[in-house]
Amino acid sequence: MPNRTVFFISDGTGITAETFGRAILAQFETKFRQVRMPFMDSVDKAHQAVRQINHALVVDGKKPIVFTTLVNAEILQVIRDGCQGMLLDMFGTFVQPLEAELQATSNHRIGRFSDASKSKEYQSRIEAINFSLAHDDGQSNLDLEQSDVILVGVSRSGKTPTSLYLAMQYGLKASNYPLIPEDFERQHLPIVLKTHQSKLFGLTIQAERLSDIRKERRPNSIYASLENCRMEVREAESMMRRSGIRWLSTTTKSIEEIATTILQEIHPERLNFE
Amino acid sequence: MPNRTVFFISDGTGITAETFGRAILAQFETKFRQVRMPFMDSVDKAHQAVRQINHALVVDGKKPIVFTTLVNAEILQVIRDGCQGMLLDMFGTFVQPLEAELQATSNHRIGRFSDASKSKEYQSRIEAINFSLAHDDGQSNLDLEQSDVILVGVSRSGKTPTSLYLAMQYGLKASNYPLIPEDFERQHLPIVLKTHQSKLFGLTIQAERLSDIRKERRPNSIYASLENCRMEVREAESMMRRSGIRWLSTTTKSIEEIATTILQEIHPERLNFE
Repeated sequence: MPNRTVFFISDGTGITAETFGRAILAQFETKFRQVRMPFMDSVDKAHQAVRQINHALVVDGKKPIVFTTLVNAEILQVIRDGCQGMLLDMFGTFVQPLEAELQATSNHRIGRFSDASKSKEYQSRIEAINFSLAHDDGQSNLDLEQSDVILVGVSRSGKTPTSLYLAMQYGLKASNYPLIPEDFERQHLPIVLKTHQSKLFGLTIQAERLSDIRKERRPNSIYASLENCRMEVREAESMMRRSGIRWLSTTTKSIEEIATTILQEIHPERLNFE
Repeated sequence: MPNRTVFFISDGTGITAETFGRAILAQFETKFRQVRMPFMDSVDKAHQAVRQINHALVVDGKKPIVFTTLVNAEILQVIRDGCQGMLLDMFGTFVQPLEAELQATSNHRIGRFSDASKSKEYQSRIEAINFSLAHDDGQSNLDLEQSDVILVGVSRSGKTPTSLYLAMQYGLKASNYPLIPEDFERQHLPIVLKTHQSKLFGLTIQAERLSDIRKERRPNSIYASLENCRMEVREAESMMRRSGIRWLSTTTKSIEEIATTILQEIHPERLNFE
């Protein structure tokens, strides 16, 4: 049983505090009880939080760890004054030296998502999610040219979660297209993809792993058999090689790693990043 | 034109560095040119990065800002020694005080996602994404009882992106079910949902906003007309009120804010969080 508590406190959703805090905590073997405290937008809530943090100290007998991305100075001060945990002030620590370097004062804006629903960036993310859903698994060729990326690969090689992640995290319109036995017989990529060569990216996977994944879906099927998976993977890889499209193996990669690698290779024009 | 460059450097995907760095930078009005440097896993790459950072200083005439989540000490040292930018070492800053407090040494594990593809947590995220896709828009009632959350609401109220976000970010099996005119005529929630009351959460939206969103899909349709949207929203809200299910308005909220609020209300059992 975890016997030390970690708190994530934020004015907004707390997603930044949590993402970052968990990455830091992953550096330690210790297991922690984790408590999320989002939308901390009043002094009252801060006083409540202080009581809860100090209570955890009594119960655990160990100093709670408190990650905060609070930008409201008054609310942060309440935590600072009352909390007997170890306070890791993620914003203050970096914002102050940045103010000096940039010779600018920070605007104390809360969270990266405030008023997000009206911003152009946000709306294009939602549009990208809808687009990627509509273009999942070669469902539709309509507006295919609007894709930023088109993933290809055999069934269950990781195309769908990667497409959705690219849409959700980066606002990219990511289509995906399965490579199926009919394509292998024809010995070329689906015709509709030919004009989009620069946007194509292939996913492949170890046949053994693929067979395991497919067996969970359809046990005892030819589809999931190791022999069939080996054939499909071999055919798909040789087709991608012949077509000169870039590809990677997803066998030991998370969707985050796959997506990051694709971005490095494809450099979608719409992404205001190098 | 942005005339100062920001670098995000990481041993892994750089997603933590980028999420956190961008949240910090959002505190300033300044626009930055942003350069992502993921997978920095060798001293050679670090030397290259140093050259690129110092080149940006010459071009911009301003100190680049360098966010790093590097955990490899040797690689970090190359950056530290050579880089003439402002180095914000996000891990070192917090890991060292934590080592003292926890009386433990950090394991210098790279990124939160390394070897993720084999972890149980990761696999349940992928499973959740597949589940949420299969249970989008009331497509399937199969295994509905496995849902952690079931979202209900009128068409285009934000159910699909929220479900996918809950799956992707938190590994929750999030189904969603549309409330349609037939339900309003029958005056009760779809029968299949009755036994899942504790998992239901409603999304509603301002009729004007809904009409705008629907018009983008189907201009000049009854479906998108303000009059129809007003009727659907009114009926859906009164149905949710009568059924005693919790709900929120998505009109001015991002999917991150909607998801965080739902988690606070629903407390899914599977989530090892308070």
